Order: sequence, then structure tokens, then C-alpha cells
Amino acid sequence: MKAVNIGLVGLGTIGCGTVDILQRNRSVLKDRLGASIDIVRASDIDLKRPRPVELPARILTPDAWEVIRDPEVQIMVELIGGIEPARSLILEAFDRGKHVVTANKALLSTHWSELVSKADDRGVTLGFEGSVAGGIPLIRAIKVGLVANRIRSVTGIINGTCNYILTRMHREGRPFPEILGEAQAMGYAEADPALDVEGVDAAQKLAVLVNLCFNSPVSHADILHRGITEITPLDLEMAEEFGFRVKLLASATQVEDEVEAWVYPALVPEGHPLATVDGVFNAVYIEDDNLGPSLYYGRGAGDLPTGSAVVADIVSCARDILSGAVARLPVGGQRHGLGSQKRVSLSDDTRSEFYVRMSAADRPGVLSTIAGILGRNEISIASVIQRGRESAQGEGVPIVMITHEASYSRMMTAIGEIDDQEVVVGNSFSMRILRSD
Amino acid sequence: MKAVNIGLVGLGTIGCGTVDILQRNRSVLKDRLGASIDIVRASDIDLKRPRPVELPARILTPDAWEVIRDPEVQIMVELIGGIEPARSLILEAFDRGKHVVTANKALLSTHWSELVSKADDRGVTLGFEGSVAGGIPLIRAIKVGLVANRIRSVTGIINGTCNYILTRMHREGRPFPEILGEAQAMGYAEADPALDVEGVDAAQKLAVLVNLCFNSPVSHADILHRGITEITPLDLEMAEEFGFRVKLLASATQVEDEVEAWVYPALVPEGHPLATVDGVFNAVYIEDDNLGPSLYYGRGAGDLPTGSAVVADIVSCARDILSGAVARLPVGGQRHGLGSQKRVSLSDDTRSEFYVRMSAADRPGVLSTIAGILGRNEISIASVIQRGRESAQGEGVPIVMITHEASYSRMMTAIGEIDDQEVVVGNSFSMRILRSD
Repeated sequence: MKAVNIGLVGLGTIGCGTVDILQRNRSVLKDRLGASIDIVRASDIDLKRPRPVELPARILTPDAWEVIRDPEVQIMVELIGGIEPARSLILEAFDRGKHVVTANKALLSTHWSELVSKADDRGVTLGFEGSVAGGIPLIRAIKVGLVANRIRSVTGIINGTCNYILTRMHREGRPFPEILGEAQAMGYAEADPALDVEGVDAAQKLAVLVNLCFNSPVSHADILHRGITEITPLDLEMAEEFGFRVKLLASATQVEDEVEAWVYPALVPEGHPLATVDGVFNAVYIEDDNLGPSLYYGRGAGDLPTGSAVVADIVSCARDILSGAVARLPVGGQRHGLGSQKRVSLSDDTRSEFYVRMSAADRPGVLSTIAGILGRNEISIASVIQRGRESAQGEGVPIVMITHEASYSRMMTAIGEIDDQEVVVGNSFSMRILRSD
Repeated sequence: MKAVNIGLVGLGTIGCGTVDILQRNRSVLKDRLGASIDIVRASDIDLKRPRPVELPARILTPDAWEVIRDPEVQIMVELIGGIEPARSLILEAFDRGKHVVTANKALLSTHWSELVSKADDRGVTLGFEGSVAGGIPLIRAIKVGLVANRIRSVTGIINGTCNYILTRMHREGRPFPEILGEAQAMGYAEADPALDVEGVDAAQKLAVLVNLCFNSPVSHADILHRGITEITPLDLEMAEEFGFRVKLLASATQVEDEVEAWVYPALVPEGHPLATVDGVFNAVYIEDDNLGPSLYYGRGAGDLPTGSAVVADIVSCARDILSGAVARLPVGGQRHGLGSQKRVSLSDDTRSEFYVRMSAADRPGVLSTIAGILGRNEISIASVIQRGRESAQGEGVPIVMITHEASYSRMMTAIGEIDDQEVVVGNSFSMRILRSD
């Protein structure tokens, strides 16, 4: 029986999931590949930590560089995350002619061009299926399944933590901090939840998708993003009353020769396939010129889901090795990397309908003042709900409205002016509305 | 610029869609492949028929064998459908060392083993992404994306005609024959709709999926199937009242060492991702041991959607040719074809909950008679709706019920006994209920 030798760098959650799958499904993988996949070297900075999987002591090392330098290793699997030393390890592996598999969205979203061009130059593969939407075979769908098509837009729910929190806030009518605390206790949110709930994680994944779908070089730091921290149970209730669900969306759309990309909480129409994606699930909705819309749904995180993507990448590399394929599929899907790149619009001034929630004193003339400000900013109101009477605490009465299509910058200007009014209490809050096609 | 030469057999709807994509997206395909895809020969039995695409007259022939015999052709694209001459053409192409791309579900679902083993023996590829669920990159998701996983079940809405008819019947509350007639007039249903509405088309596609997902040799003729012709607007209304949507499902589940496969109309719980798949759209829901559930959604038919899958297969073959890969990916996903095959259970005696609609005279004791028959067949009732009073025409009063889990054979026996009762009018009708996990 032939064998393909791999080296693992990082034995954390995804590393252990990967080992578990390689061990548990060893026989089916052999049947499918026609060779065994052997872990010949594995590193972790802390080898003493208890792990759910067992590897022979002789292949373990605390030094990741030993894995890269091992001439037996044909495929290096990088699962330590972060920028360094992951970047240097991967570049060195390329220089040594090794294929690399990674799930490192932070690295890919900041060093895409460097990694892609070096792998292509060296004729090796960089697999990154696990970096976006966990186990959903999304990267392959885009690079291989939709290869004949021009993608117009990609819109996803790609942060499971935010989606889990929003789903529970909606079902239970309870506020963000409470649900976040429980999600942390259950391991669905990190101790430091900022990367997730402020939209940074989604922006990193979106940067990978923009690079891939539009051949547009962009770093996640350039993508404007907002998170879900300002959303209240009232917003979820009002959205439902208007016929929508609230989701943290990561979206990129080609508009003429530019790509508009953003990560924002948004109202999704009830009939849209993304509206029913609940809990920790991810889904990505793609529109292209031949297939029209298509959607890919599944678990976006976790040891086995992401491990499933990592092992699929290992198998693809192994098939290249065993079949003698040389530089079969360019890493970014483009043979002529910089030929048809598109600029990413960073102004973020997409026009859309908006949901706006304000709180104002219950006095005559308030709505007319607000409507006046919106009108001067060329924003017209589609519908308004005003709920209940002012409470004793002087918190004001919530006013919630849906606008017709407006520019994002004018909406921000209008909200600034509204919040300056003496009758308005606290900060107003707006969300985009996803167009229903 | 390098080139890969293809020959097309069949210039019908999908053939023309394929040509359209190859011509319109020629430059992006070049960028992605690093070579041009050139149509060097194309055949159709009727070259005079007007077509939406143009090909140079010198490459056209009415004789499909000329395409196969052309030594320039590296990839043969078979889009004539049906068993013969498609089968002989494909086998001959394999013998000549040519890769083949097809969307022919009828052929694959009857001659799977012959085609797969011959292609693998000859070291060539048989691409069949277009054969199931049109443009959705589903075959690749299973063969490549989920390669590390053991699939437990696959459940799909894979006949767009039936789904379109059911969606309109539900929205408009109008009967099957009316909507079918309109669908035929609009080109969404064939002049002879039997293959679609009786579930044969879905059974063909399911046979391909069973072969692929479970390495289980099965012909579509062995898969028990029912269609949608007996469904009434009342069924759709009652299903909604119970919290379900009615869909024609094609489903295969591994139960111990066997695979249970069936094509039946079924009630899908409202919260299930398949429940909101409406109109001509297809979706396939897969459950495996590592990723858990995943879903793939998009257009399941049409010139450009299916053409998109065909061109993706052409590109994959071209990448093998250009990279020097030999026998990189076995056609059925298994390197040792017959090693771990599973038997397909043809008894179809899956246990499930059921929806049952009867019509009976509005007399005392009717419900107790029916309940007695069900009880003797070990079927217990979960809920019942009885609507309105008997009409003047003696059509009886509809009685609709949901049962607890029961065996399919016992349900059929019970329905036979119920229909033999003098108080029961016409034939009763039952549908499975998809379990909500």
C-alpha cells in the first residue's frame, strides 16, 4: 500500500479533530485515495496538555521547524493560527517543495498575495478550505464548481458565534450581554469575544472570499465592519414584524469594475434562503452569471467540521502527489494572477434600504422633526412603528422605521443630526436591509 | 497559449448552454485554466434546427461517431441523453483514451458499474456533475469536499418540475392538473410529464447519489418511487396547519449495513432547511459523521445552470491533461471499487410518522372505525383534523391525521382496509413525514 506522509503543526482543537478523522476514518480514506495518509511528525508548543487523541511519542516535538525540516513530510498542515510564525513556516515549507494545508484566516486575509504567488511559483498547493465556513466545501465550490461562471456577489453568515447569539436573543427575547455570557460559559464564544462580536472574524473570512471570488487583493483591515453589540431584543422583534430576520452578514458585490465589501448586521427578508440559517450554522449565498443563486450551508466551526475540511485538503494534495500532477490548480484559482484584478471599493457607500431605531420623548412634533432631517438627507420613509408610551425612567419611546433606498453616508449624517436633537434619547441605531431578488 | 480540444455530442438545450458559456466566458476560463478550451468537433442529428449559438460549419457533423473518432478530441462531451447510443459512444471514447463529460442521469443510473470501472481501467475521467441537481456543485462536494466523512443520509429536492408545481399549488390553492397544464405551457414541464411527476427522474438521480455516497450498486428501476399526482391543495393546506411543507423527496439512509432508498412526497418540518426550497430550485441535505448536516442549494435544470456544471467538468479534465495527472480521482470516488459496497434495501419498509388523508361519510362512529383499523395495525394517531360537513355530492368529509412512527408496510395494509369500508369515499392518501433532528 502506498503512503503519503504529512506533518502537523499545532495540536489544538482543529489539530486534534484532524487527527481524530485521519485515525477513525483511516480505512475509508484508504479506499478512496488508494494510499494511506501517515502522520510522520507533529508539533505543539505544549506537549503535556491532555488531548482527546493519541499520537506516538516518537513523532511529537515542541518545535514546529522540525516538522518543516523533516524530509519525510510531503504535506505540512499548519493549524497554529495567527500571523507569525505561521507565515514563515508556510513560506519555508513552500521553499522545500512541500504542499501546505491551513485553516488560518487571519494569515490568509493579510498575506494572500505573498502566499498565493509563492505557492504557485514553487508549483505546490496551498489548501485553505477550513479557513472560511468551517467544514462547508465552499472554497472548492468557488474554485472548481463555479469555475465557468463570473461571480457577481457573495453574501454569507460566516460567524457562528454571532449567529448563535442572535438566534437565542430572538427566540428568548433577552439582551445581548446575557446571551453572550451564557455562550461564553458553554464554549460557543471566546473569553475575549471582541473578534467575533465586533465583526473582525467575519471580515477576515470575507477578505479571503473577495480575493478568491473577484481576484481582488484586499486585507481584512480594509473592510469596514460592524458587529452585533448594539442590537437589542426590540430590534429582533421589530424586524420580524416588518417581515425580516436580523443576521450579521459579510457581503461583497461587484459594481462595475469595483467590488463593494462590508460586514454589517442586516435585515434579511423572510423568504431569503439566508433568513432561516440559525444557531451556530453558517451559510454562503453566491450569485453568478450562469447558475444564478446558489447556497452552501453547514457547520462553520468546531474540531470535526473544520477537521473535515482540513482532511479533504490533505486528500486533494495527496491525489496530486500520487497522480504525478504538477501545479494542477492554482491556489487562487487564477493561472494569470494579476491579469484581471478588480479594485475593492473602500468607501462602503452602497445604497440600500435601512432599518432605523430611535428613542425620543413622547411629545407632539417629534416624528415631524425626525422626518424632516431624513428628508433633507434625501431619505424617504417606507413605514414606521411607534410602540408604547414613555417610561418613568425617561428612556423615551422607541420609534422604528424602514426607509426606501438611501446612501449609507447620508444615513450616517442623518442619524448624527437626529441624535443631536434635544428630544432624542441616547444613540439611534441603523441596519442595512438585504435586497430580496 | 496552450489549448485543450473538446468534441460535443448533442446540441440541444444543455449543449447550447455549454457552447454559450465556453464562448461568452472564454477569457475568464483562459485566465483560470491557463489554456483555451477549443470546440474542434460537434455533432447533432438535426443540424438545420435553429440554435441560439453559432459554431463554424466545418466542425459540425450529423454523425456522433465522427466526434469520437476525431484524434484531435481530448474530451468528449455527451449531451444527447438516453441509454443508446450514448453508452456505446462513451465506452468507445474511453477505449480511445478520451475523457468524457456527461449529464446523462438515465444512463448513469442504469450502467453505473460498467461506466465507472471502464473509465478507471483506462485511466480516464468521467465527469457527471450535471447529471444531478443541475448546476449545484454537489457531485464534487460529495467526492472531494466530504471525502474524509462517512455519509449517513442524503435527502434531496431534485426534481424542479415537481417542486415548481407543488409551490404553485400551495401558494394559489389550485389543483395539480391546472398547474401542470400551465407549467407545460411555460416550458417548466415536458409535454409528457410522467418521468417528472411520477418520480422516475428523481429516482434516476437518487440512484446516482446512492452509488456515489454509499458505494452501493443500484439501478433506478430498483428504487421504489411515488410522484405528486395524488396531492391536493387540501393536503398542502393541512400540512401547513400541522407545521409542515410538502416536497417530493429523494432520500437514502444507511441503516446498519444496508441503504434504504426511496422517492416519495413527504411532509418536511417548517424549521428544516429543505422546507423553504421553493419553485424550480433544488437542494440536497447530507448528513455525515464529521460535518453533521450540510446543504447545497441552487438551480437544478436549464441550459446555463447545467451548462455551468458541464463546463466545470471540462475544466477539471483539462487540468488533469495539462498537469500530467494520471488517474487522479477515481470516477466513483473509490480507488477499490467493490471493497466496501453496501446492499441497497429494496423492501422500503422504513419506519416514519405519516400524514394520512381520508374521506368518509359524516356519520357517528366513522372515526372510531378508522382508529380501530389503525390500532390493529399498530399505528397510533398523534393528531386529527376533520374539516367541514359533507357536501351534497356525497364526496364525504375529509379527515386528515398525523400518526406516530409506524412501519410503511403496515400503513399500506391499514389504508387498504380503511378504503374497503363502506363509509369511506374514494382512495385514502398517505405521505411520510421527514424526521426533524
